[in-house]
Amino acid sequence: MAGVDGAAEAVEQMKLQQQEKSKEELEAEREARKKAKAAEKAAKEAAKAARAAQRGQKQGAVTAPEADDPLADHYGDTELVQSQAQTERVWSDVASLTPDRVGQSVLVRARVHNVRGKGKSCFLVLRQATATVQAAMFVDDQTVSKGMVKYASALPRESIVDVEGKLAAPAAPVEGCSQSQVELHVTAIHCVSRSAVLPFEVTDAARSAEAVKKAAEAGEVLPTVGQDVRLDNRFIDLRTPANQAIFRVQSAVCQLFRESLQGEGFIEIHTPKLLAGASEGGAAVFRFDYMGRPGCLAQSPQFYKQMAICSDLGRVFEIGPVFRAENSYTHRHLCEFTGLDMEMTVNESYHEVLDVLDRLFVHMFQGLNERCARELAVIGEQFPYEPLKFLPKSLRLTFAEGIQMLQEAGYDVDPFGDLNTELERALGKLVKEKYNTEFYMLHRYPLAIRPFYTMPCKDDPRYSCSFDIFIRGEEIISGAQRIHDPALLTERAEALGLPVETIQSYLDSFKYGAPPHGGCGVGLERVVMLFCGLDNIRKTSMFPRDPKRLEP
Amino acid sequence: MAGVDGAAEAVEQMKLQQQEKSKEELEAEREARKKAKAAEKAAKEAAKAARAAQRGQKQGAVTAPEADDPLADHYGDTELVQSQAQTERVWSDVASLTPDRVGQSVLVRARVHNVRGKGKSCFLVLRQATATVQAAMFVDDQTVSKGMVKYASALPRESIVDVEGKLAAPAAPVEGCSQSQVELHVTAIHCVSRSAVLPFEVTDAARSAEAVKKAAEAGEVLPTVGQDVRLDNRFIDLRTPANQAIFRVQSAVCQLFRESLQGEGFIEIHTPKLLAGASEGGAAVFRFDYMGRPGCLAQSPQFYKQMAICSDLGRVFEIGPVFRAENSYTHRHLCEFTGLDMEMTVNESYHEVLDVLDRLFVHMFQGLNERCARELAVIGEQFPYEPLKFLPKSLRLTFAEGIQMLQEAGYDVDPFGDLNTELERALGKLVKEKYNTEFYMLHRYPLAIRPFYTMPCKDDPRYSCSFDIFIRGEEIISGAQRIHDPALLTERAEALGLPVETIQSYLDSFKYGAPPHGGCGVGLERVVMLFCGLDNIRKTSMFPRDPKRLEP
Repeated sequence: MAGVDGAAEAVEQMKLQQQEKSKEELEAEREARKKAKAAEKAAKEAAKAARAAQRGQKQGAVTAPEADDPLADHYGDTELVQSQAQTERVWSDVASLTPDRVGQSVLVRARVHNVRGKGKSCFLVLRQATATVQAAMFVDDQTVSKGMVKYASALPRESIVDVEGKLAAPAAPVEGCSQSQVELHVTAIHCVSRSAVLPFEVTDAARSAEAVKKAAEAGEVLPTVGQDVRLDNRFIDLRTPANQAIFRVQSAVCQLFRESLQGEGFIEIHTPKLLAGASEGGAAVFRFDYMGRPGCLAQSPQFYKQMAICSDLGRVFEIGPVFRAENSYTHRHLCEFTGLDMEMTVNESYHEVLDVLDRLFVHMFQGLNERCARELAVIGEQFPYEPLKFLPKSLRLTFAEGIQMLQEAGYDVDPFGDLNTELERALGKLVKEKYNTEFYMLHRYPLAIRPFYTMPCKDDPRYSCSFDIFIRGEEIISGAQRIHDPALLTERAEALGLPVETIQSYLDSFKYGAPPHGGCGVGLERVVMLFCGLDNIRKTSMFPRDPKRLEP
Repeated sequence: MAGVDGAAEAVEQMKLQQQEKSKEELEAEREARKKAKAAEKAAKEAAKAARAAQRGQKQGAVTAPEADDPLADHYGDTELVQSQAQTERVWSDVASLTPDRVGQSVLVRARVHNVRGKGKSCFLVLRQATATVQAAMFVDDQTVSKGMVKYASALPRESIVDVEGKLAAPAAPVEGCSQSQVELHVTAIHCVSRSAVLPFEVTDAARSAEAVKKAAEAGEVLPTVGQDVRLDNRFIDLRTPANQAIFRVQSAVCQLFRESLQGEGFIEIHTPKLLAGASEGGAAVFRFDYMGRPGCLAQSPQFYKQMAICSDLGRVFEIGPVFRAENSYTHRHLCEFTGLDMEMTVNESYHEVLDVLDRLFVHMFQGLNERCARELAVIGEQFPYEPLKFLPKSLRLTFAEGIQMLQEAGYDVDPFGDLNTELERALGKLVKEKYNTEFYMLHRYPLAIRPFYTMPCKDDPRYSCSFDIFIRGEEIISGAQRIHDPALLTERAEALGLPVETIQSYLDSFKYGAPPHGGCGVGLERVVMLFCGLDNIRKTSMFPRDPKRLEP
């Protein structure tokens, strides 16, 4: 532990210099601090290397061919790719390496998923996203030298390599590789980018709880990777097959959302995230200094998509970040998430909005099942789940009906209070039992528990023209018909004690002829989490933000 | 000016109370302040009404039918639309009112664009987005009463009405209406939402500079609406035909961008906008308090899309807000804009990125010309412009070639300095003359003027593997091959004096095997502005943010 000693010395040195400091002294002090830092770093690296050695990972010390090797041009690290030139070389995707290509010479760029050198041979598993293929080399002194096997065997896992070789049919299917019907006989291997010692193994991060449990029953302790370590090194964690699939599913959710709405005449808008005052009032607002005056971050595009309706854009949607300074650590809250928002004119009722949403989500669920079948299977391998049950025409229940179901099942519920997470789950279970669906719409919520801009019901002003939509008993959507009458809107804002002057331009926008309208907001991460039956929203946010996490 | 006097009195009253105040006194003071405010407001309203009267706009005083009118159910204000019920009534779009429907009874919900009552008749122009139709009524005591004409004649412009009537063929085409081949003979008219006195007329906001000039030549002064008044009342300004079209074009640009990239295997990602430290360093950062520690807003998704590449997502794009605390008021800068970002692995060169962008933009320009032909024509009516000249395969010039062209044309330019707006425009002009294109790519910029993460050129490290792309002589895209080697990246960051510790997790992400990669960022508002030849980026941002504007 020489490094740690070095650090202590340097600190001691600095302590001795607590007098008047000349320029030279300051310089020296800076130098000492630098040394201390370097020493600390070295100590950390040594500890890391020791841990890695324990895990059996070798350090990549061999970076160049042996000097006298006649096959020296078959291996070694490439020079840095710097747009030197464009050659005619063609790289193949690992996923494209199928039995019909046996006999072909191919070039792939992939990660070293695993490497196993054994005397005169070396086996590598090459990985590209979720596709893997085995690559093998045997010393023959014609294309593969001893030096080449030594070089390849010393490659650190997760390094990126260019591998040339001939596709062959293996004697038996290669276990554990997605391209199990082929094997690559390596003729050249060059490292493009070397990995440092990993904080954890991708294989360990990719293991299911089931596999860990099974191994434990057989007396073997398999390593697991905790959530914080994963998120601290998210750029490695995201490489697991399940994560590769989750973010492809997320991308598809956005695409299907847009597809459906654009097909119904919606246009995409982009509303400001920098606002004066609080976007919907309340405490959960991030405040900042905007060129010398107070600003805040949008908690939703609510006011602006409504202004877009007052601007005659008719039917609009937005996909964008939403900021909530909420100090909560639940499995389903984030301080920043992606909102899928829509707003539309209605002629008579919020049921027109529900009609659009019904078509939208059935399109989305069907689309995911069809287009992302492979990704969903990959996610299921690490995180097993039951496919979502939904109906071709979605179920609509009134809030009062929901309350009644809960009461009949013996729950003690306030018919004009909000449903907590537990009650929402309980109702989801009852609905699933009775109607065989895990996707349903609950409407006519009590007015008192909805935002001030929610239209009250005409027939019973204790209720409102609002709805929530649920997947697997958890809320993913909140929406309503909005108040388009400026007098009523102001009255409601005042009744709820909102500082009316901070939302004056929003209120004003309804003064010059406002069409009746409604809409909703959907949380993208929640949709993915609940569709895939995942247990934590941090799994479906690429770089999640919660009260403790702002990095990476 | 009683109102103003009232305000002065109230202020005087408050001044007199600068002593110790009891609770009652404080109450009284609050009351007085309220009164003063109300008086001021009344004065403002009166002034507004006076201005409106000058413009000839009547106040909508008639809201209900006359008590003894047997045709009373044919007109009057509707009760507030509150999702009471869903009827079987079908509303037609104004744009769907074509000659083949003559003879049909239709119901439309539209704005009162204009209204002209004349004794026993009333003519209205009804507007829905960019479509307009004439509606006429004549007193006949069978379907139209005197009271109904009076009611309709008093409707304030921009109010929203439900109009029932029979489609007829007009004697001559209706001038100034988009649906000029039909006319609606009104049988019922009900106001859904009344407009208050307008701060300006939509017609005035929609007028072209050309029309104002022509009128002036004929001795007539037509009103114009200044940019600030427009933006203060953006929800009215956006109703002009050109604005309706601009935001439909903007929506199409996003769609075409995604379409092209998704077709090439890109997936959509969402990266955090809340960061610890400065996203790319520099001063133009909005800072805020994140749960008690310093945070800042992302100036670009740069670091995160690169981390997505290190996470094996291969080809990614993002459409999202970008925040720049720049204190500049140019025609092309905003403090918040929408970034179209992409990043991809490259095998050898940034020219692979340019190949993708070439296909993308040709697809986008062709797509806009085909799908938005009508919108582009509508924009051109208020803001005349020449269609963009572009080549089926885009021109690529090196920065050095660009410098040479400028030098040959007599410009005094630093071959390793940045091009200012003026020089960029000059070069755009030269390129257009020589190559007949207003869209081209300039690559191999001097290293010194690019961000620290830009890959230097191997053959000449004074240059970099970077590019800008121009429309009509203005930069819309900046991109490059990025440094994927962690040692070189750290070295460059240090060389440029960046606080390396604040970007440690970004630097770390390259340590565990990083694929060579490149990408770019595009400003959505700039693309729309320059494609349509508009003169100010505030025209293509729905609710623009600049150092002075944070509202609405």
